[in-house]
Amino acid sequence: MSHFWSPGIDRLSPYVPGEQPKVADLIKLNTNESPDAPSPKVIEAIKAAAGEGLRRYPDPSSAALTEALAKYHGVERDQVFVGNGSDEVLAHAFYAFFRQSHPLLYPDISYSFYPVYAGLYDIQVRALPLDRHFAIDPDDYVGESGGVIIANPNAPTGRLLPIEAIERIAEQNKHCAVVVDEAYIDFGGQSALALLHQFDNVLVVRTFSKSRSLAGMRVGYAVGSPALIDGLVRVKDSFNSYPLDTVAQAAALASVNDDAYFVESCQRLVGNRDRLVEQLTALGFECIPSAANFVFARHPEHAAESLAAQLREKKILVRHFRAERISEHLRISIGSATECSTLVAVLQEMLS
Amino acid sequence: MSHFWSPGIDRLSPYVPGEQPKVADLIKLNTNESPDAPSPKVIEAIKAAAGEGLRRYPDPSSAALTEALAKYHGVERDQVFVGNGSDEVLAHAFYAFFRQSHPLLYPDISYSFYPVYAGLYDIQVRALPLDRHFAIDPDDYVGESGGVIIANPNAPTGRLLPIEAIERIAEQNKHCAVVVDEAYIDFGGQSALALLHQFDNVLVVRTFSKSRSLAGMRVGYAVGSPALIDGLVRVKDSFNSYPLDTVAQAAALASVNDDAYFVESCQRLVGNRDRLVEQLTALGFECIPSAANFVFARHPEHAAESLAAQLREKKILVRHFRAERISEHLRISIGSATECSTLVAVLQEMLS
Repeated sequence: MSHFWSPGIDRLSPYVPGEQPKVADLIKLNTNESPDAPSPKVIEAIKAAAGEGLRRYPDPSSAALTEALAKYHGVERDQVFVGNGSDEVLAHAFYAFFRQSHPLLYPDISYSFYPVYAGLYDIQVRALPLDRHFAIDPDDYVGESGGVIIANPNAPTGRLLPIEAIERIAEQNKHCAVVVDEAYIDFGGQSALALLHQFDNVLVVRTFSKSRSLAGMRVGYAVGSPALIDGLVRVKDSFNSYPLDTVAQAAALASVNDDAYFVESCQRLVGNRDRLVEQLTALGFECIPSAANFVFARHPEHAAESLAAQLREKKILVRHFRAERISEHLRISIGSATECSTLVAVLQEMLS
Repeated sequence: MSHFWSPGIDRLSPYVPGEQPKVADLIKLNTNESPDAPSPKVIEAIKAAAGEGLRRYPDPSSAALTEALAKYHGVERDQVFVGNGSDEVLAHAFYAFFRQSHPLLYPDISYSFYPVYAGLYDIQVRALPLDRHFAIDPDDYVGESGGVIIANPNAPTGRLLPIEAIERIAEQNKHCAVVVDEAYIDFGGQSALALLHQFDNVLVVRTFSKSRSLAGMRVGYAVGSPALIDGLVRVKDSFNSYPLDTVAQAAALASVNDDAYFVESCQRLVGNRDRLVEQLTALGFECIPSAANFVFARHPEHAAESLAAQLREKKILVRHFRAERISEHLRISIGSATECSTLVAVLQEMLS
């Protein structure tokens, strides 16, 4: 606490990201990073951007990237907004849309950054409990609301909400912005992008950090109606004219343009996931059906915190949340085939 | 205006950055970019960072860069905060410190992003007029205040405030944060870093965009007391855990470590500036004494707007502000020796 701070700064509860360990020989299955390297074309694009041109400011509107994303998703340019990672896009969305006289609705178990943004911007919230299978009931999302945010597939559960349920939520909340955070949608499930022609209140948020293997480059984006995008642009241009550096813009553009690499990487990941779920189940784990690049699992006979600690001793990092209702689960990112096999072998030994 | 927007979003007046033209053959003296390429070691560092590691999240605290900057400025690590360009650092500072019951004080003519941040966060301001020589009178900065922000050297005037005046302002505003935006300090003048041992309310903000030729990489930072830095960290960690991508961290670190290149580049720029001021003066321009990498000049017999338009026809971009008190001035960034000579030759022809 400092008397130089604005009111409320002392009450913030900042988000705590998954550990980025300093040592190199760990199997890192704790932050949902891709096991694949970025596309070789992305690496080439970064090297090509490394030159004299960096003395210049980047394109403030990331026009080439915005246009490529619009084309990729079959929407207009004024329906796309890019930012410095989807976390920044989400922060701007909270500020642009959710500071209302009615509370923001979201599931009680979801991306743990949502309550942090709400705290930062003094947004009232109503957390709606997932059912006992960790599923969202769309009928809960009714009544007076200042906005809705849902991660789909949800985090940290991995569970997918069918597009019909999203549609229902959008329909029931036509008066306010409904943000669908699709950080993991490329690993399964139908995107709410399909609803955009029908709903001007739906904003789909995406990231290059998972399925595009570019967590290190910080690129995220949103797709929605021009009115929603304009709101984000107004906040962005009042905050930082140039959120994406020249190199990040070039890297992201090259990624969008290399669809074959992207598709193959996602398919391989899904294969690894389905195999891992089978093997974990055989070891007695209960896995929530996952449409993401991680699996959320509990073992009825072993405490999650202790399992995480034992795995860490074996140089395998997974994520454990000390939060209500989920403290008996582990969130395990899907690694390479080799990493998954090692995990299974280590668990087999631990549990026997 | 959209009914999905939070109250106030419709009233924002976003910042308008200097034009980044799409055509290549312009002499671009409108956004205070460096005429020099980044250090070859920076380019090397970027290429070295372009690899498999980008699938991982960056270090959220930019520890290596923070430590290098702390060492460079002879302060502790908990006195340094890095961000996605100094614009982001400033935005966080406005949010963390200036939302107070008393108004923020700043000069009426200064970096035009300050009123934009204030508008974004609903911060009341009191703009204190510069004197007729565009100088700041430190005695104006007294009384009830919720904070002070001053660019030194000031923008777009280039005029330097002596360290004693900054000290006076800090002394008179011990109850609140005093931010000194030193985007241009490397081109002349004494830094307020010298005051940090004496004042826990002073925050110095710096950028890699000008003197380090890295506008394209978006890196800025702040140096101040641990209490001020902690306030910034709390906001940052409630907004975006990873503001700097892996490549930007590597580039900035390499720049800090190549001091010889940096010093030489600054010296060359200052040489070009002093020569240009002499030549402009010979052409009849009145130049405000500049400690920055630009010069703010007016010609008593030629309208600034028309001069800017004529220069543009000759493929030279300079910046003209249609704002009260400064609409008769041009802000001319200092280019390479060749670019400066071309500018002078073109002006000579235009004015004759």
